[in-house]
Amino acid sequence: MSASGLLGEIADVGRDPKRGGYSRHAFDAPEQDLRAWFGERALGLGLDVDTDHNGNIWAWWGPPGPDAVVTGSHLDSVPGGGAFDGPLGVASALAAVEALQARGFRPGKPFAVVVFAEEEGGRFGVPCLGSRLLTGTIDADKARGLRDTDGVTFAEAAAKSGFDPALVGADPERLGLVGKFLELHVEQGRGLIDLGSPVAVGSTVIAHGRWRFSFAGQGNHAGATLLADRADPMLPAAATVTAVRRLAAAVPDARATVGRLVPTPGGTNVIASTVDLWLDARVPGTATPALVEEIARAASEAARAEGCRVTVTRESYSDDVVFDDALRRDLGGWLGAPPELPTGAGHDAAILAGFVPSGMLYVRNPTGISHSPEEFAEADDVEAGAAALATVLERLAR
Amino acid sequence: MSASGLLGEIADVGRDPKRGGYSRHAFDAPEQDLRAWFGERALGLGLDVDTDHNGNIWAWWGPPGPDAVVTGSHLDSVPGGGAFDGPLGVASALAAVEALQARGFRPGKPFAVVVFAEEEGGRFGVPCLGSRLLTGTIDADKARGLRDTDGVTFAEAAAKSGFDPALVGADPERLGLVGKFLELHVEQGRGLIDLGSPVAVGSTVIAHGRWRFSFAGQGNHAGATLLADRADPMLPAAATVTAVRRLAAAVPDARATVGRLVPTPGGTNVIASTVDLWLDARVPGTATPALVEEIARAASEAARAEGCRVTVTRESYSDDVVFDDALRRDLGGWLGAPPELPTGAGHDAAILAGFVPSGMLYVRNPTGISHSPEEFAEADDVEAGAAALATVLERLAR
Repeated sequence: MSASGLLGEIADVGRDPKRGGYSRHAFDAPEQDLRAWFGERALGLGLDVDTDHNGNIWAWWGPPGPDAVVTGSHLDSVPGGGAFDGPLGVASALAAVEALQARGFRPGKPFAVVVFAEEEGGRFGVPCLGSRLLTGTIDADKARGLRDTDGVTFAEAAAKSGFDPALVGADPERLGLVGKFLELHVEQGRGLIDLGSPVAVGSTVIAHGRWRFSFAGQGNHAGATLLADRADPMLPAAATVTAVRRLAAAVPDARATVGRLVPTPGGTNVIASTVDLWLDARVPGTATPALVEEIARAASEAARAEGCRVTVTRESYSDDVVFDDALRRDLGGWLGAPPELPTGAGHDAAILAGFVPSGMLYVRNPTGISHSPEEFAEADDVEAGAAALATVLERLAR
Repeated sequence: MSASGLLGEIADVGRDPKRGGYSRHAFDAPEQDLRAWFGERALGLGLDVDTDHNGNIWAWWGPPGPDAVVTGSHLDSVPGGGAFDGPLGVASALAAVEALQARGFRPGKPFAVVVFAEEEGGRFGVPCLGSRLLTGTIDADKARGLRDTDGVTFAEAAAKSGFDPALVGADPERLGLVGKFLELHVEQGRGLIDLGSPVAVGSTVIAHGRWRFSFAGQGNHAGATLLADRADPMLPAAATVTAVRRLAAAVPDARATVGRLVPTPGGTNVIASTVDLWLDARVPGTATPALVEEIARAASEAARAEGCRVTVTRESYSDDVVFDDALRRDLGGWLGAPPELPTGAGHDAAILAGFVPSGMLYVRNPTGISHSPEEFAEADDVEAGAAALATVLERLAR
């Protein structure tokens, strides 16, 4: 089946009637449906499917072994996300395998399609959790203790999904099989619109991280409490949102965002007792932590001015990644020199890049918008991406 | 049973493990349990219980009829609220009836204990919804269409709770039976701490209302979208929170609060597409709408500066209320001249006050904090309040 056809099969899984788009979070019902769908489609291609200790699914074409060529992406989404972010890479990998089989190709090396768990961090807060666990770039105990908004831990969710939380963590044996990793992904900006190309090769991923700011004040009655008697954590939280933009704007090429903010208890006629907000900050090079420190200072001053307290917790951080030079040269050569693109978006390929030669292909997104229902890819571009993936996989695995 | 004993019976109903305190919202499971509990306790006192067209429960001591003396409060809470706001008035009413029965009193007039529905507006957004519907101060169609955060309408919730949504709305027949209304309530500020008295008579309720500010921008990827390319509704929402405090601080005795703010989709790595916030504003006299207009102007300017749009919707508004002069004089005389207290908190009694002579008694709150788990009343003060209520009900209903 074509990559578009495969995406069509899952077009109704996990739609979010409230936010629009899709909400498919690690191990929830829609994501489990997608996992089952992936397993069926992979088995249909004659692949052998297993799930590793960290909830990542591997579909092997031929026997597993070292120096494997591995491709894939993820099936989870941000809340209210688009149809392509993640599933496009998985569907293109399956379509590429089918195309290679149809032209009689048999890989000369071990070959696998992988689906990484919790890439968006939409449920447990840490992005690329599956690939971080596989590579040991997150501590297993920290991962086990991560909680979703209902208080369910990753360990509990893992157990409920049928794998042993005691085994969660670095998996050098599995990682040791991976010779090269390649991820195809919808582009999440306007690069390929401006370049007029359906496909690009990934060059770099900028440093990025997430920080939780927890403001604590005094919950109270919104009508009976005079302004002078308040310690309202919503005030320093708002000042921090403003400071994030102001301070980031002073740093070249920085991106800094507050997209999630939760007052507790969250009643209209109630002064909040606490407000939690999450900062997503990304600056090329090594400047992200310094920017976050400046923001934390502004938050702390605003909290003090209102008689509140703030604590700042780093939830994740990844340095700049430059994808493997040799692999990039090969990909470019085999595909007729498509453009190279840097990105501000994080990916499992950027986690893997610290351990094995890794690369990415991007497919044009005519809206330039992502993490939104408006994310899109034209059917022709989807097929061009899957064809490019088949071309390079054939070279890599021959 | 004493009022404290009655409160003890419901101390475990609707505890909120996440926020602390209680979350008991109109027609949810805990509030239904409290309604059933109230019905049993009223029946145990020989009262006849019925629920009106708007979900308010009436327990009649003797046959219903005109010129009735009615007392009561509500059983719903804000999210994460205290144990006393609402239930104290209901428990004190039941305890007062029992005390009057024990001393051989039989009312010479029709007499009822009432529990009003959705006083906090914690589920459907409009405070005092039950008393507004009874009195016709909210349009029935508007009320039927109000939605909770899951999208369930008041009409649907009403039908599920066993009353006919077609009959929701002004109930002049029922209202016509009420001769006088009296509500006992825990104080929600520090007035009685400072005055050194366990009980006060209510004097005024300041004007108050709720407005929803909906900011719309462009949802997008938090890493791939440059700051200059953004229309992030979190920015004008934050600027509005700041403006609310700054503009309210310039108006004597004004209170203005943003306690609820919801970004959609609400992902850490996602620029929000919309942000809704709710403004609770209260200024003595007629100045509330002018303050809200100033805030709306600031919101509109901030939205424009970020390439966003904002719409402002009034969800409720009530003018200043002065409780009935003659009733206040009587209450003060019968209770040995306790202090009179104004309040910034809204109450069903303030809605009823537009239609029948109404009054309030407040019971001291040693923390001065309300709409929070820290709200409190000492057992001695609870019993002093219930005794004062019995005293004045005996006079009113003789």
